Amino acid sequence: MNTHEVAEAFTALCKAGEFEKAGLEFWAQTVRSVEAMDGPMASIEGIDAVIAKSEWWYANNEVHAIATKGPFVNGNQFSLVFDMDVTDKASGNRHAGEEVALYTVENGKIVEERFFYGT
Amino acid sequence: MNTHEVAEAFTALCKAGEFEKAGLEFWAQTVRSVEAMDGPMASIEGIDAVIAKSEWWYANNEVHAIATKGPFVNGNQFSLVFDMDVTDKASGNRHAGEEVALYTVENGKIVEERFFYGT
Repeated sequence: MNTHEVAEAFTALCKAGEFEKAGLEFWAQTVRSVEAMDGPMASIEGIDAVIAKSEWWYANNEVHAIATKGPFVNGNQFSLVFDMDVTDKASGNRHAGEEVALYTVENGKIVEERFFYGT
Repeated sequence: MNTHEVAEAFTALCKAGEFEKAGLEFWAQTVRSVEAMDGPMASIEGIDAVIAKSEWWYANNEVHAIATKGPFVNGNQFSLVFDMDVTDKASGNRHAGEEVALYTVENGKIVEERFFYGT
């Protein structure tokens, strides 16, 4: 699959709410996940670590709604815009807003995902 | 200025419709501009070439509206989402839709801009 095909298939799963399935299907073994934060979760590598982060996120956040827009493609990268409405279970803080995700594709797999937060 | 400060100032100019001023204020001398297309305009380098491309774009497109969302920041990069309603003067084709722009900042200047188009 080329980048456009990966982008379309990955996005279709996200739009169906199948975020974890999208990751499992398209993350490369070496995938790197980069959040816009400091600390040990800021940049992690390897599919097992990324799956664990995903599971941690879903365990610690209550998702009210996530709407996915895109894909937006350039070369071997594509971008999605997530409109999220989520409550952090620990603090009880509910946050609604958009974030941008940037995916880099090699050999039909996502080798990097990078998340950009609104200021 | 750090990346957050550049992102906020650049975005404020874009939201005010001052796109060319935003570029002139924040493009580095060596800025690289990457479009999601083939051909000689796909990747250009240097502030003079990027200014010329911008002038070409405004000369060849009639802008009905551009709404700017963001900024979305991660590390030394930030992203904007442009909701554009534009007519290509040559073809007469009017196109409305979103695109994503990704900016890389070094030393308070934008050293790369990269545009992602909806599919």
